[in-house]
Amino acid sequence: MSLQSVLDTIDQSLPEATDRLLELLRIPSISTDPAFKADCDRAADWLVKDLEEIGFTAAKRATPGHPMVVAHSGTTGPHILFYGHYDVQPVDPLNLWDRDPFDPQVQDTAKGKVIRGRGSADDKGQLMTFIEACRSWKTVHGALPGRITIFLEGEEESGSPSLIPFMRENADELRADIALICDTGMFDPKTPAIVTMLRGLAKCEITVHAANKDLHSGMFGGPAINPIRVLAKILGNLHDDQGRVTIPGFYDDVEELPDAVRQQWQNLAFDHAGFLGEVGLSVPAGEQDRTPLEMIWSRPTAEINGIWGGYTGAGFKTVLPAEAHAKISFRLVSKMDHEKISASFQQWFTAQLPADCTVEFKDVNGSPASTMSIDDPAFEKARRALSEEWGTEAAYVGSGGSIPIAGYFKDILGMDAMLIGFGRDDDQMHSPNEKYDMESFHKGIRSWARVLEKLM
Amino acid sequence: MSLQSVLDTIDQSLPEATDRLLELLRIPSISTDPAFKADCDRAADWLVKDLEEIGFTAAKRATPGHPMVVAHSGTTGPHILFYGHYDVQPVDPLNLWDRDPFDPQVQDTAKGKVIRGRGSADDKGQLMTFIEACRSWKTVHGALPGRITIFLEGEEESGSPSLIPFMRENADELRADIALICDTGMFDPKTPAIVTMLRGLAKCEITVHAANKDLHSGMFGGPAINPIRVLAKILGNLHDDQGRVTIPGFYDDVEELPDAVRQQWQNLAFDHAGFLGEVGLSVPAGEQDRTPLEMIWSRPTAEINGIWGGYTGAGFKTVLPAEAHAKISFRLVSKMDHEKISASFQQWFTAQLPADCTVEFKDVNGSPASTMSIDDPAFEKARRALSEEWGTEAAYVGSGGSIPIAGYFKDILGMDAMLIGFGRDDDQMHSPNEKYDMESFHKGIRSWARVLEKLM
Repeated sequence: MSLQSVLDTIDQSLPEATDRLLELLRIPSISTDPAFKADCDRAADWLVKDLEEIGFTAAKRATPGHPMVVAHSGTTGPHILFYGHYDVQPVDPLNLWDRDPFDPQVQDTAKGKVIRGRGSADDKGQLMTFIEACRSWKTVHGALPGRITIFLEGEEESGSPSLIPFMRENADELRADIALICDTGMFDPKTPAIVTMLRGLAKCEITVHAANKDLHSGMFGGPAINPIRVLAKILGNLHDDQGRVTIPGFYDDVEELPDAVRQQWQNLAFDHAGFLGEVGLSVPAGEQDRTPLEMIWSRPTAEINGIWGGYTGAGFKTVLPAEAHAKISFRLVSKMDHEKISASFQQWFTAQLPADCTVEFKDVNGSPASTMSIDDPAFEKARRALSEEWGTEAAYVGSGGSIPIAGYFKDILGMDAMLIGFGRDDDQMHSPNEKYDMESFHKGIRSWARVLEKLM
Repeated sequence: MSLQSVLDTIDQSLPEATDRLLELLRIPSISTDPAFKADCDRAADWLVKDLEEIGFTAAKRATPGHPMVVAHSGTTGPHILFYGHYDVQPVDPLNLWDRDPFDPQVQDTAKGKVIRGRGSADDKGQLMTFIEACRSWKTVHGALPGRITIFLEGEEESGSPSLIPFMRENADELRADIALICDTGMFDPKTPAIVTMLRGLAKCEITVHAANKDLHSGMFGGPAINPIRVLAKILGNLHDDQGRVTIPGFYDDVEELPDAVRQQWQNLAFDHAGFLGEVGLSVPAGEQDRTPLEMIWSRPTAEINGIWGGYTGAGFKTVLPAEAHAKISFRLVSKMDHEKISASFQQWFTAQLPADCTVEFKDVNGSPASTMSIDDPAFEKARRALSEEWGTEAAYVGSGGSIPIAGYFKDILGMDAMLIGFGRDDDQMHSPNEKYDMESFHKGIRSWARVLEKLM
C-alpha cells in the first residue's frame, strides 16, 4: 500500500523531477578536459544541495582531481550504497549536435519523449532516478528508507584516478551490505537487466618519433622514414583477417563462457541485425567465430580510439611529420590483467619499429574485468522488483563497457555490486545528440522505489 | 667592369635589401588557409609597389584565387621571364617555433648569419634575390637590363589552381626566350646547381565512413567496424618490406636513369649519411635497391602527409568514430601520369574496403614530372655565371620537389625553364624555424647579376 503511494507520488512529481535533471544537465562537467574543472565542482555542489534538501547529510569531498559527493541517511536496517557519476564525456564533434549539448530539452520523437543533452543517459539522468526515488519515498513516509549511502564520482569519464585512494581512505564509511550502481542499460526497451559481467580496460597513448623535425616531402620524400606510415603499418597488423588480435598471448587469460550462460544468452534472442542496423552497419567486425553478443560481453577487443599526425587542416601540406600519435584501448574479459596486456602490446609494437624510429607510451592505465556472484539473495529480490515494474522478466546480462567501480567494491570494500540501469542502445552515449528516454527516467525512478521496498 | 660595379653596389646595399625582405616576410601570406586571404593580397600589393619603384611596369592581376603579380621592363634584347611565388606554407605546429614565424629576424648562428621566418627560403627570400639584382643593375646602369618579365604567383603552396588558366589567357604577354625559376636549392652549401629534373605530384584526401555516428567502444567494441582500423590496415599495405609502393602498375611509366646521368650523380659524391643525419635519421627508408639520391631525384614515392580520426584531445575517449581521414601524396617521375596514378590508387584502396565501409576521395589533383633540355646555350651560360660567383663548378641536378610551373612553361608557352636557387638542405622549408642563409641571399643576388650579364 505504501509502495503504491510512493509510485503515485513519483508519477505526479515527474515534471518537477525532469526540471531538476535539466538543471543538472546544464552544468558542463566534462572531467577529462581541465578547462571544465570549475563546472565539475559546480555539479558536485548542486548534488550536495539537492541531497541535503531531501534529508541526506551530504558533503563535497576533495580529491587531487574532481571532488566526490558522499551522502548518508539512516542508522539502522540494511545498508545500501548507491553509486553514480556526475561527470560527462567531451562533446566534440560539436557540429554533429542538433543543439547545444549543455542546453538540454525534452523532445517529442517518433519513439516517444526523450531528454536530449550531454550526460542525460551517462550518467546524470541515471543517478537522478535513484535520488528521485528517495525523494518520493521521503514525501510519502516522512523519512528515507533504511540506511542509504550515496557515493557520486566526478572522474568516471577520465579514468577515475582518485577513486581507489578515496575508497581506501574512507572504506569504513562507504562499506555497506550491497552496492547499487546505476550506469548501465536495459537489455532491450522492454527488458530490464542486471549486469553480472563487465569488461575491463587497458589503454595508452602512443607517439612514434622519426626525424628531429617536420620535413618537406619534396626534399626528403623517399629516403626519410614517415612516422605516420610506421604507425599505420604496425596498427594495421593489430588484427588478423579473422578479426582476432595478433598480440602474442593476448587470449591467454580469456575464459570460455560456461555452457549455462551461453544458453541463457541464446534465449535472450538478441537482435544482432537490429543492433548493428541502428547505427548503419550490417557485418559483425570482431572475431569471426563469435556471435555479436559474445563480441560485446565476453570477448576482448583492441581499438584505435584516436589517430593523428602531419597536416590535418584545410588544403594540403606535403609534410613528412616528425611524429605521429594514436590512442589505443583494449576491452578485457575474465582474468586478463591490464598491466600484462599493456606490457605485451608495448613489446609487440616496439618490436615492429624500423630503425630510426622510437616510440613513447604515455597515460598507460587500466582496470580489470569483473564477474558478479549472483548467490546473494539481493540479486533475485532486485530482479523481481524490476520484473514487476516492467512487466517482463528481468535478465542477467553482460556488458561491453568497463565500469571498474564494481570490481573496486569487491576488492576494496569486500561487498557485491548490482548494476541496474535504464539506458537504451540508441542513447548515443559518448556521441553527439545523447538522449535519455522519458520512459527510462520515469520507470527508472519507479524501479528504484520497488527495489528499495524489497531490499529494506 | 660594369658587372663589377653592380656586384659592388649589391655588397654595399645588402643591409637595405635585407630590410626589404624582412618587411615582405612580416606579411603572413599563407595561401592554403582562407583566413589569410587579405594577407596574400597585401603581399602582392607590396611587390607591385617595390617593382614599380625600380622601374618595372607592374600590376596585381586578379584570379579566382590569390592574385598574380606581373611586371615588365624593356622592349628589346633577349627576353627573360622570371618566376617566383609570394605565398608561404602554414606554420603549425606553432609551439615548435622559437619565435613568431611572421616576426622575422637576422640571427647569428654557428653556421653564420641567417634570416629566420616563414617564407625566408620558400620563396620570398629567393624571389627577392632576383629583384635585388635588378635594383642594383638599375642603380649602376640607370636602366634595367634587356627585356624582363617578372611573374609572381600567390598559390604555389596550395596547388596553383589559377596558374594554368592565367598562363593560357596571358600566353602572349608571358612568353619569353627562356624562363628563370628561383625556388630550388644549392647542391650543397658550396656547390650551386641548375635543376634539370623535377618530380611531379598526385594527391588527394581520403575519408573512410563506417557507422552513421560515433559509437561508444563499451557498447559497440567488437561487432562494430572501426574506420581508423580500416584506414591503418589499408595504408599499412601501401609499401612492401622493400620500401616499394604496392599499387598495381605504379612503376609502369617509371624510366631507368640513363647511365651518363647516373654516372654524373655518382660524381657528385652526395653525402648520404650527412643528409639524413642532419634531420636525426640514419637509414634510407625508400626502395632498398636504390641510392638515396635516386630515391629523391628519380624515383616515385607514396606518402601519408596527414592522418586524423577519433578523439585526439587531452585525456581519453573510448570512441569508435564514424569516420577517419588521411591526406596522401605521390611524387611522380618520368612519364607517370597523375590522373592514372590517382585512379589506380583509388581502385587499390577501394578494393580493400570491408563491407560496411565506404570511401570518399576529394581534392584529387596533381602535376606531371619534368625533364629539361640542356641543349639551349643559356643553360651553359648560366652554369658558368654560377660557377664564377661561387668558385665551384655548378652542377646539373635533379630535385625531389614538384615545381609544376617548369612543365607549364614548356607545355603552355613552349619555352624552356632554368631552375636556379640558393636554398640549403637545412633551411627547414615547410617546417618550424624556416631560415635562409644570409650568404644565400647575398651571393644569390650577385649570382643573378652575373646570369643577367651573360644572358643579355
